[in-house]
Amino acid sequence: MNWLLIFIPVTIALEWLAPSKHLLVFIASSLAILPLAAWMGRATEHLAERMGEGVGGLLNATFGNAAELIIAIAALRAGLHDVVKASIAGSIVGNILLVLGASMLAGGLRRPEQHFNAVAARSQATMLTLAAIGLILPAVYNVAIGHQDSGSLGGLSITISVVLLVVYCLFLVFSLVTHSALFTGTRDAEKKGEAHTPPWSAGRAALVLAAATVTIAWMSEILVGAIDPVAKDSGLSKAFVGLFVVAILGNAAEHATSITAALKNRMDLSLSIAIGSSVQVALFVAPILVLVSLVIGPTPMDLTFPAGMVLIVLLSVLITAQVAGDGRSDWLKGVQLLAVYLILGVTYFFLPDPSVPSSP
Amino acid sequence: MNWLLIFIPVTIALEWLAPSKHLLVFIASSLAILPLAAWMGRATEHLAERMGEGVGGLLNATFGNAAELIIAIAALRAGLHDVVKASIAGSIVGNILLVLGASMLAGGLRRPEQHFNAVAARSQATMLTLAAIGLILPAVYNVAIGHQDSGSLGGLSITISVVLLVVYCLFLVFSLVTHSALFTGTRDAEKKGEAHTPPWSAGRAALVLAAATVTIAWMSEILVGAIDPVAKDSGLSKAFVGLFVVAILGNAAEHATSITAALKNRMDLSLSIAIGSSVQVALFVAPILVLVSLVIGPTPMDLTFPAGMVLIVLLSVLITAQVAGDGRSDWLKGVQLLAVYLILGVTYFFLPDPSVPSSP
Amino acid sequence: MNWLLIFIPVTIALEWLAPSKHLLVFIASSLAILPLAAWMGRATEHLAERMGEGVGGLLNATFGNAAELIIAIAALRAGLHDVVKASIAGSIVGNILLVLGASMLAGGLRRPEQHFNAVAARSQATMLTLAAIGLILPAVYNVAIGHQDSGSLGGLSITISVVLLVVYCLFLVFSLVTHSALFTGTRDAEKKGEAHTPPWSAGRAALVLAAATVTIAWMSEILVGAIDPVAKDSGLSKAFVGLFVVAILGNAAEHATSITAALKNRMDLSLSIAIGSSVQVALFVAPILVLVSLVIGPTPMDLTFPAGMVLIVLLSVLITAQVAGDGRSDWLKGVQLLAVYLILGVTYFFLPDPSVPSSP
Repeated sequence: MNWLLIFIPVTIALEWLAPSKHLLVFIASSLAILPLAAWMGRATEHLAERMGEGVGGLLNATFGNAAELIIAIAALRAGLHDVVKASIAGSIVGNILLVLGASMLAGGLRRPEQHFNAVAARSQATMLTLAAIGLILPAVYNVAIGHQDSGSLGGLSITISVVLLVVYCLFLVFSLVTHSALFTGTRDAEKKGEAHTPPWSAGRAALVLAAATVTIAWMSEILVGAIDPVAKDSGLSKAFVGLFVVAILGNAAEHATSITAALKNRMDLSLSIAIGSSVQVALFVAPILVLVSLVIGPTPMDLTFPAGMVLIVLLSVLITAQVAGDGRSDWLKGVQLLAVYLILGVTYFFLPDPSVPSSP
Repeated sequence: MNWLLIFIPVTIALEWLAPSKHLLVFIASSLAILPLAAWMGRATEHLAERMGEGVGGLLNATFGNAAELIIAIAALRAGLHDVVKASIAGSIVGNILLVLGASMLAGGLRRPEQHFNAVAARSQATMLTLAAIGLILPAVYNVAIGHQDSGSLGGLSITISVVLLVVYCLFLVFSLVTHSALFTGTRDAEKKGEAHTPPWSAGRAALVLAAATVTIAWMSEILVGAIDPVAKDSGLSKAFVGLFVVAILGNAAEHATSITAALKNRMDLSLSIAIGSSVQVALFVAPILVLVSLVIGPTPMDLTFPAGMVLIVLLSVLITAQVAGDGRSDWLKGVQLLAVYLILGVTYFFLPDPSVPSSP
Repeated sequence: MNWLLIFIPVTIALEWLAPSKHLLVFIASSLAILPLAAWMGRATEHLAERMGEGVGGLLNATFGNAAELIIAIAALRAGLHDVVKASIAGSIVGNILLVLGASMLAGGLRRPEQHFNAVAARSQATMLTLAAIGLILPAVYNVAIGHQDSGSLGGLSITISVVLLVVYCLFLVFSLVTHSALFTGTRDAEKKGEAHTPPWSAGRAALVLAAATVTIAWMSEILVGAIDPVAKDSGLSKAFVGLFVVAILGNAAEHATSITAALKNRMDLSLSIAIGSSVQVALFVAPILVLVSLVIGPTPMDLTFPAGMVLIVLLSVLITAQVAGDGRSDWLKGVQLLAVYLILGVTYFFLPDPSVPSSP
């Protein structure tokens, strides 16, 4: 797959020489992202080998979301709050439905049943419920006050963001310090049997991760710039593109690593990438963006998401908690998560653009 | 109870000779259904003995829902979409609250605790959550577009219906082929102690099932025809009659077999009838009716259910997932499910007819 | 802490001599409640030692809620339905988020993991879901009929109240008679090691409980009387004060005992106080108040809570079911529950007073 790396210079060249050929830029940058995501995945696995599956998953989620954070800050500076919110909601939903669903399906086709630490999975699912509540209340508040007093909405958004950030920091303490044993994975025996080559040194793996992240961020920015005109030509709504197309491409790294881990029966790593990435977007990326928007950008961004997005986040979190709560997965669970993703995607696909629901 | 079979000719005679005596027709056909339901139950149990509890439960659910499907297609042809939707929602809710609740209560009065396969139960509960999401989104979509573009609503309904049907087929593969062991039941030892007579041959059991189903379908059609005038005389709202009266009578077969199975401590059979029947209505009967309505009937039916019905389906699914998720039941769980059914029924009983909520 | 008992006469003196010094009355009565709550807790633990943790928790919840019931009946007589409803919703939410969260956090700081009977916890969580459904339906009904026919709302409220009361009585039969073993606690060995003094006699413990309850009820009534003017001076909204300030102070007894129990690793006692108290408010206190309002008070109170309160009850119940369902707790679970409480509180804190949402 490494020959696809050729599309990195191709993308850069197209962006310079033929910036109006949006579809070509779109395709080239998408192809360039794939091998980079694969390299990120490989580096993560080597790190996981050295530092445990929990830490590996967290690092993968962090580097994966670093790209999104960089792009979102650029969008914030341009005042594109709608784009930022759609990409946050799409990323939360995509990681727990598409990435986790595809991982459970792929792993389940090889083995009748796979196991993971249920306590860690439930703990992350509860984090997502907490985050969903943190999105529901500002939206309902906004409807309740009827736009009469949007000043207090800012105060509410900032306070909730701080609460979410504090809880996320405590979750890191929990998963890396006080209860790290829950997140380290239990497939050691099997892993050893599979590992034919010695793992990279932590330094080499970190270097590869960092290099791949920076390049992915660059390619992603070009890709996102091409999406809007491509979408316009294809007649897709902005909400659909933001929630589904951007999110799928933006989570390519998580996607590749999580499926690979599932195929190798390392479900603890797979889950800590898929669910962990959603947790990080909801409790770290989103609040950080709210706080950052106070400093940069023309107007501060609040936590009030459109009602439709709040609803799909809530439904995704509900079914994920149901599916991940018992510490075992099979292919049908993967199908169920993917089916929900498909239903959500189809609904937004059919939704005409101006009528994205902004109140229930 | 076999002497009640006399009400089959009585019902037919009344329908021919005194079609205006609606209350008499109503009572006679209701009484005729009871022994037929008992025979269906008996045949199902013999099949379960031969083919495992999962297959037995599936067959019972299928034959039980065959009657409903026949009646619904007749209603579709007459363009009565409201009646069809109420009977779908009522059947989903009735099976998981009334049938499952009564089974858990009945079984729990005999034994302090009963056990069933939690993985199978959770898998079916997740199917219901998926189906509930498939009902929520078209309803919300309908509100979001504000009736401005009902053409795309048809496209959305058809797509979601196809997704649900595909998932249902995969669920059959899961429960009958790849993971059938989860659904076969674990009470074999106890069953053998109770079975004094050898089980029927599979052919004989299937024949009895088929004959009872056809006759029930006939009686049900007469019954449903009598319900509307009886309801009018009694002053009950159409929504209440469709959601509760029709659903209770239409699920008599599932009801009888599921309770009998629970009393014999065959909870895997009981659950696969009760929850399985709801799953089948939500992911097979409802989508099939949407697709069939494209061919027959004056106008195509969409998946947009009234908000009130979507809400009660969602709440029922929520509490069922909570109750069935841990693989054990006791009499209090039965009481809790029945209480929810009672609360839902009472609310629709008090709801005046023209104001059935069609938007949240 | 016993020296704080001096604030009992101080409160009474202030109430007589300087009733306009609301802030002083407020502070004095709050301080007087603390040692009384501690005595209630101590008596409960001695009773639990003699009669099992389930009965002990039930008694604590009952005596704790007795005070609230007395105050609520006084408010009913004055026609203050809004105050009564806010205190009911605030008490349900406060017990499962604040009291349970603080207990899990406190206990989790001492031990990496604590255990309790998952079947009993799930059974209580399902009771709360049932109660939440009993609150959702009248609220939705109210919106559906559009205030056109509030007569039937009374009938609906009374019927649901009777259903909830019957289920609560059956729950008592379940937890005290047929399945009491689930609720008795499993930490006996550890308890014996900790108990240096022999437990009080049941009579002595009951006497202390009763005396502390009566005094708390008295102090609470004075405190509640002072809250309104204090709130007015401080500019807080009535809904915030009713839902959070009154509820925190009104549940001081449950709070103290539940945390103490958690610190002693008696999680079964802790949960049966925290969740049990919410169950009792939702399924006993609230329905009793609806029925009592038919006899006393200017107008009967119905079960229609403002949409905002129904929402926060539903969200709290959802996350509690997730957190308590697996029979183990750690400090992060405590943090998660407390964070939800904080987010709910902050939202109501920012909500301007006249726009408390009364419809979704």
